[in-house]
Amino acid sequence: MNESKNANSAKPAANSMWGGRYANSPSEIMERINASIDFDRRLYRQDIAGSKAHCEMLIAQGVIASDDGAAILGGLDAVLAEIESGDFEFKTALEDIHMNIEARLKELVGDAAGRLHTARSRNDQVATDIRLWVRDAIDSLDSQLKALQEALIAKAETHAGDAMPGFTHLQPAQPVTFGHHMLAYVEMYGRDRARLADCRKRVNESPLGAAALAGTSFPIDRNMTARALGFDRPLANSLDAVSARDFALEFLAAAAICASHVSRQAEELVIWCAPQFGFIRLSDSFSTGSSIMPQKRNPDAAELARAKAGRIYGALTTLLVVIKGLPLAYGKDMQEDKEPVFDATDSLSLMLAAMAGMVSDMTVAPDALRRALADGFPTATDLADWLVRVLDMPFRDAHHVTGTLVGVAEAQGVALDALSLDAMQAVEPRITQDVFSVLSIDASVASRTSEGGTAVELVRQAAAAARERFL
Amino acid sequence: MNESKNANSAKPAANSMWGGRYANSPSEIMERINASIDFDRRLYRQDIAGSKAHCEMLIAQGVIASDDGAAILGGLDAVLAEIESGDFEFKTALEDIHMNIEARLKELVGDAAGRLHTARSRNDQVATDIRLWVRDAIDSLDSQLKALQEALIAKAETHAGDAMPGFTHLQPAQPVTFGHHMLAYVEMYGRDRARLADCRKRVNESPLGAAALAGTSFPIDRNMTARALGFDRPLANSLDAVSARDFALEFLAAAAICASHVSRQAEELVIWCAPQFGFIRLSDSFSTGSSIMPQKRNPDAAELARAKAGRIYGALTTLLVVIKGLPLAYGKDMQEDKEPVFDATDSLSLMLAAMAGMVSDMTVAPDALRRALADGFPTATDLADWLVRVLDMPFRDAHHVTGTLVGVAEAQGVALDALSLDAMQAVEPRITQDVFSVLSIDASVASRTSEGGTAVELVRQAAAAARERFL
Amino acid sequence: MNESKNANSAKPAANSMWGGRYANSPSEIMERINASIDFDRRLYRQDIAGSKAHCEMLIAQGVIASDDGAAILGGLDAVLAEIESGDFEFKTALEDIHMNIEARLKELVGDAAGRLHTARSRNDQVATDIRLWVRDAIDSLDSQLKALQEALIAKAETHAGDAMPGFTHLQPAQPVTFGHHMLAYVEMYGRDRARLADCRKRVNESPLGAAALAGTSFPIDRNMTARALGFDRPLANSLDAVSARDFALEFLAAAAICASHVSRQAEELVIWCAPQFGFIRLSDSFSTGSSIMPQKRNPDAAELARAKAGRIYGALTTLLVVIKGLPLAYGKDMQEDKEPVFDATDSLSLMLAAMAGMVSDMTVAPDALRRALADGFPTATDLADWLVRVLDMPFRDAHHVTGTLVGVAEAQGVALDALSLDAMQAVEPRITQDVFSVLSIDASVASRTSEGGTAVELVRQAAAAARERFL
Amino acid sequence: MNESKNANSAKPAANSMWGGRYANSPSEIMERINASIDFDRRLYRQDIAGSKAHCEMLIAQGVIASDDGAAILGGLDAVLAEIESGDFEFKTALEDIHMNIEARLKELVGDAAGRLHTARSRNDQVATDIRLWVRDAIDSLDSQLKALQEALIAKAETHAGDAMPGFTHLQPAQPVTFGHHMLAYVEMYGRDRARLADCRKRVNESPLGAAALAGTSFPIDRNMTARALGFDRPLANSLDAVSARDFALEFLAAAAICASHVSRQAEELVIWCAPQFGFIRLSDSFSTGSSIMPQKRNPDAAELARAKAGRIYGALTTLLVVIKGLPLAYGKDMQEDKEPVFDATDSLSLMLAAMAGMVSDMTVAPDALRRALADGFPTATDLADWLVRVLDMPFRDAHHVTGTLVGVAEAQGVALDALSLDAMQAVEPRITQDVFSVLSIDASVASRTSEGGTAVELVRQAAAAARERFL
Repeated sequence: MNESKNANSAKPAANSMWGGRYANSPSEIMERINASIDFDRRLYRQDIAGSKAHCEMLIAQGVIASDDGAAILGGLDAVLAEIESGDFEFKTALEDIHMNIEARLKELVGDAAGRLHTARSRNDQVATDIRLWVRDAIDSLDSQLKALQEALIAKAETHAGDAMPGFTHLQPAQPVTFGHHMLAYVEMYGRDRARLADCRKRVNESPLGAAALAGTSFPIDRNMTARALGFDRPLANSLDAVSARDFALEFLAAAAICASHVSRQAEELVIWCAPQFGFIRLSDSFSTGSSIMPQKRNPDAAELARAKAGRIYGALTTLLVVIKGLPLAYGKDMQEDKEPVFDATDSLSLMLAAMAGMVSDMTVAPDALRRALADGFPTATDLADWLVRVLDMPFRDAHHVTGTLVGVAEAQGVALDALSLDAMQAVEPRITQDVFSVLSIDASVASRTSEGGTAVELVRQAAAAARERFL
Repeated sequence: MNESKNANSAKPAANSMWGGRYANSPSEIMERINASIDFDRRLYRQDIAGSKAHCEMLIAQGVIASDDGAAILGGLDAVLAEIESGDFEFKTALEDIHMNIEARLKELVGDAAGRLHTARSRNDQVATDIRLWVRDAIDSLDSQLKALQEALIAKAETHAGDAMPGFTHLQPAQPVTFGHHMLAYVEMYGRDRARLADCRKRVNESPLGAAALAGTSFPIDRNMTARALGFDRPLANSLDAVSARDFALEFLAAAAICASHVSRQAEELVIWCAPQFGFIRLSDSFSTGSSIMPQKRNPDAAELARAKAGRIYGALTTLLVVIKGLPLAYGKDMQEDKEPVFDATDSLSLMLAAMAGMVSDMTVAPDALRRALADGFPTATDLADWLVRVLDMPFRDAHHVTGTLVGVAEAQGVALDALSLDAMQAVEPRITQDVFSVLSIDASVASRTSEGGTAVELVRQAAAAARERFL
Repeated sequence: MNESKNANSAKPAANSMWGGRYANSPSEIMERINASIDFDRRLYRQDIAGSKAHCEMLIAQGVIASDDGAAILGGLDAVLAEIESGDFEFKTALEDIHMNIEARLKELVGDAAGRLHTARSRNDQVATDIRLWVRDAIDSLDSQLKALQEALIAKAETHAGDAMPGFTHLQPAQPVTFGHHMLAYVEMYGRDRARLADCRKRVNESPLGAAALAGTSFPIDRNMTARALGFDRPLANSLDAVSARDFALEFLAAAAICASHVSRQAEELVIWCAPQFGFIRLSDSFSTGSSIMPQKRNPDAAELARAKAGRIYGALTTLLVVIKGLPLAYGKDMQEDKEPVFDATDSLSLMLAAMAGMVSDMTVAPDALRRALADGFPTATDLADWLVRVLDMPFRDAHHVTGTLVGVAEAQGVALDALSLDAMQAVEPRITQDVFSVLSIDASVASRTSEGGTAVELVRQAAAAARERFL
Repeated sequence: MNESKNANSAKPAANSMWGGRYANSPSEIMERINASIDFDRRLYRQDIAGSKAHCEMLIAQGVIASDDGAAILGGLDAVLAEIESGDFEFKTALEDIHMNIEARLKELVGDAAGRLHTARSRNDQVATDIRLWVRDAIDSLDSQLKALQEALIAKAETHAGDAMPGFTHLQPAQPVTFGHHMLAYVEMYGRDRARLADCRKRVNESPLGAAALAGTSFPIDRNMTARALGFDRPLANSLDAVSARDFALEFLAAAAICASHVSRQAEELVIWCAPQFGFIRLSDSFSTGSSIMPQKRNPDAAELARAKAGRIYGALTTLLVVIKGLPLAYGKDMQEDKEPVFDATDSLSLMLAAMAGMVSDMTVAPDALRRALADGFPTATDLADWLVRVLDMPFRDAHHVTGTLVGVAEAQGVALDALSLDAMQAVEPRITQDVFSVLSIDASVASRTSEGGTAVELVRQAAAAARERFL
């Protein structure tokens, strides 16, 4: 394929992937399959923080001399500064972020650098790094989810009283308010936040000090490093500490579930801005045109938010498969944990940002919502409930009578509240004029006063309560 | 294919699945794709409990008359008794468990039965049923996980002092004890229990009273039904209540992660009972023979436990895909939530039972574990650590010297502690006789006294602590 | 959980055949995890066919005596008749379909039955059975796909001339005809058939005679059994023959891809029968009502067809995970191949039947299609193309001018062909009256005469060609 | 998280992913979620080839003037040269590879560039590009698979006569030869090649000329562009042409199945180089050390090859989910097809290269293979078969007698052929000295002469045949 270097610069591994290149150079293949620096460089900050905590503990415990320790700490800060300023040269030959940093440390501080790796292994080091990274990702995603909830609650407040068809099976079912609909998503994203918070508890335990797999004979203090890094506690078993990746699986699962919520809302946005629905209009910022059709106004961001759920599901699948059937303790397979975690985090972050942006910017069309209520007899349930409440019919009988009346209205091509009383009494003689008090859209909405229902006042209260609970 | 009815009796849907049959009868196809009674009958107990709670609330709130209510409650008890005694006839024509029960209720108590469905819908009913079922499944799986932990802790206590090679990359790495290895799994299963417990919080909220999607105009008391069914609270938004399935996704994710742990341990059991390893012998109960090879003793249960992880991953994938892009509120797609939940629960339950049985029954071979320590220089790290500690070498230098000494030993075909002091000093003159104090297996194990390490006394303490924490 | 036996009767427990060999009775757990008779009974016909072919070959090769062989053949026919008549008692204690049949054979014909298993193993036996089953499933699904194509082509012929909005991003893009849209699916399902046919080539090779894994010392004739069972040839390597399951993976992948097509079409049906679209009306047979909302007419079958894609994806995931990292040759993990294959086949068969039924029965609403063309300026591309063709504008400039004109029309609230020539010339003075010849829906459709385009005559030709190619 | 630009340079999208950044700038979010240039730049060669073919056709059909056409063609060559030399500046603001190239073309050749997009759309353009890319990827992977087969066949030839235990359930089953085992994988990879070849047929059809979705009114020649690009034919339906992605799904499925084969072989390599097995030794090039354990020699490449199966499964899951439920025609969701296709191709290419390298370089240890045959009574089946053949026992009886004799040998701690004739006759008096002729490993192997069996001569023939069939 001979793709040019330039074209592949975003993905350096790709340009030499093809057949013949490998024939004479097993070591090149090995370097390519083995090196992780292209992606684990994202752990540089966590890696340096972990090394500093480890070094300070080694000093405190007298395992390394203070002056060596000071040199290491200063050197690590220098490396951090180099990376953040863009002056650091990452080398594939050094395989991973840990060795890149340690090699540079040695250049900067000399032999003392060799003492940093006392009483630890890359096995506990990488487990520490990735846990710290996932913890930060959780905190960041939590902020984004909160911002999205805020956008939804604001929309709910603005449109607490705007009636629209509530759908089941994408068929009009009963009137609800637009605000009520927005608040349903506030609940979903609230549970996503709770899931991430629960996951965080299991992420936030320290593997550091497990060394390769068995612990170490050096007199280390695992509680000290755990505290320094903000972990809740050291993990209790050294074999488990280096081989566990269930924290990453749980994170990916929480991300996938959250993505399923985004995909549901994105689907609704796509449907709602089809002209046949016309419930909303996305802002220019979140619409795109066509290279061929000049009139197009496409909800690309919503479609991509929907699609990226697939990507996060894929990341979860990836890591579940990697972990399946893996004996203890560390195996190189585990190196494949990072890219799915990174990609799922990036994707979900982007999905949440796009969804918050679309919700904030979109224009709701109350008139279109109201017009849509003309279709599908959405107050039929209200009629049935009236028959139960006023005429004391068993619900099943009321359901049957209502079905008949819907058939009559459909044949006449009118809404239920446009049927004459005569026409109704022809079906059920006991029906009175009072029935019309429940057949309007507004009456229907107003009647849904059961806890969690869509009555306008309840929606306003729910929005206020959501502010309390989530923001 | 014309499979006989008898051959397919376990899966009644299968026997008429083939092409031609459908040509003339759309309604038959519709019944077959639509009916759920073949699997949702497993919800009968939850459905009846939910109906009783709903009925009692309707009575209390004056929505239905006491005598009607009493008839319904009595009738529901009668239906329950019929089902549990095997006298109930499930009918596919009645589509699902809800209608099967309601239809029978009507036969038993007459018109009053028609009042039960007042102020509810199948949408909130089925959401209630499946939440109750998942809650029970979580409690049951928690018990099984606890039993498995107990079996592992008992094995850990018995073999707290039996050294074995700890592996990384399936290569001998450092000595650990068999007990320490067992306790690593105790930690994993402990986190699985914590995950299920966290999931339970989100499962245990009541959708009942959301009705179809919008709430109801009847003066219901959702807190009363929630309390009666042991839910923590009613769900806050009626649209969310009927369309949320993230609780089921979270349950499947927790099951999948737990299954990954079982698969890892199962892989180890399979490897350990290969004669090349011979670390354990499974009991007769958990071994099988071959139809052709009379000498075989196969770890079928371990293999199946490993394989069924795939099945649970598949169930998770299924529901994630079903939910993707689904607009609110209820869609029939959601009917596909039950079979993956049921199958994953059954599979995981069986995996945990089999694993607990295998662990309890297996015979550990301490001699084989010890023999295996002769391979692979598992105390090389101890030598390197001695160089650091006693000679004050930087670890990186010590690592290099040790590598050279391993090469010498490998060339001589002996273990590290069988090298002569002369041979060692030829590589590093400062090495003294004292080095041999760290080169034995037992010395290595004894030295791993860092928190969470494999020193025998720590393993005993960890086993005791695990009893406290988990049992 | 304590579900009653009755409620669980669809999933009974198991037993074991290995009792005699071992000191202790196999535990109930082992029986339950190990037995496969609950699902592999579906292989009874394939198993008997394979045994008969094997027996006839053993006779022909002189491995067993003719009278023994005749007894076995007669016995196998008798067993088949018993199963098909429903008189056969399947026993979980006998573990699987193979042993159930062999045990019954022994009851029927005595000791001769013991000679049937000469020169084979359950490993090659089960691989043969499942390949035969998958081959039959492929043939059956192919018939169903053909029937679905036929329904689609018929609809395409009826509505070859009915214009509708073609959508991209669920936004109106350009006019197409309903027939053209139907034929797009004919192409997809045609490729699904081709995929299944290609898969069939790899399914249809015979493992029989590989014995346990190494071949056999008996003078068997693998070509004879292969021919007898309709296989194309024996598999070339005995280890591969018993451990390969890629044929099943490929089948599941083809099923999953086909299911993705069904899910796409199902999504469209769901959207199209929302009243906002109203493009089609599903027949009563494929619509359902609501337990609470008497007016509902829900497209449940379409939703279930869409959802079951998830189930088939899940089956594929399951088997991919089961196979991952499995060493040669047979492992018990492979027993987990059957249920995903069976379930995916049943699900896809039902999806295809439902889709064919829905398509055949649905009523298309040409008026609604035509009305929908009023929205979204679907002939904007025609305007741009006119500017290119007649005024020789570069397309990019024409695209820009058209965008401006769409903006003018939008501001006026009219369709493009309702703009005055003056208004057009205000934007681009060279526009002439001739432009209106391309701005009508019918002119637009008629102009799309490029190969594969939507011009009515081309659609009619394409439908005729599809009949030739596929039916 | 504030990751530095430098640290993220491999993944430019990542460095600004976090929350606060988005608050004020919806358009930035939109650019980030919408732009594809970071990954679709890999399509530059295919995109330019497609544009050239389209341009030449437009000239030939008289749609654009020859001089404009010549300018475009020359400009496209110049762009290609710029990209391949690394001088091209890709701009995110230009969104994708198509617009990047067209914008540069306009800079180079002026207004004529605007005529290139006549009679096409990005919808058919991107579908063309990705099909061409996948076709190339298939061809490249086919070469790699062939190279891997060649390495395996060479190993099979060298070790055609080296006996080893054939395993089932990871328990010794019957002797096979190492060559036979290698050839099992040759079969699997051969089917992978066949699958890719079949997939290629469905990839290699041309969407070009479908335009946005409906075809075009320009007098294009789709056969001409199809031929120019090496496609077999134009796709028959314009809607299908732009919305089909089943070719990519099929490619990912074939890749996933192939990856499952690699994972199986990788698992065996990992197990085989554990010292407990010691069947092979990987070369230095494919082994790695440890940061803490100086003696380690880890099979990292095999582990990564095993793990990356998960990644490819994940890519397949991703795209299956993206496509699920997507209405026609093009939706932006489809932009998510590229990264999984690219990543799966890169991963599989690397896995195959690594596997070929490991197989070529590994050292097989025939002595270790032979020693392993001492365990597990691998000739028990030969004994049973002797009883059938010589004593005319029914196989089931022979199986039983052999089981008893294995028990005797196990109790004595000897192999079967070390039992005395007396000891055998005590179990079955008719056994004669002749039995020992089948109990040796070599006799067992030699006896497996059924087609596809492991007899040494057959293995040699099979290797030769494999050369014929595959190389």
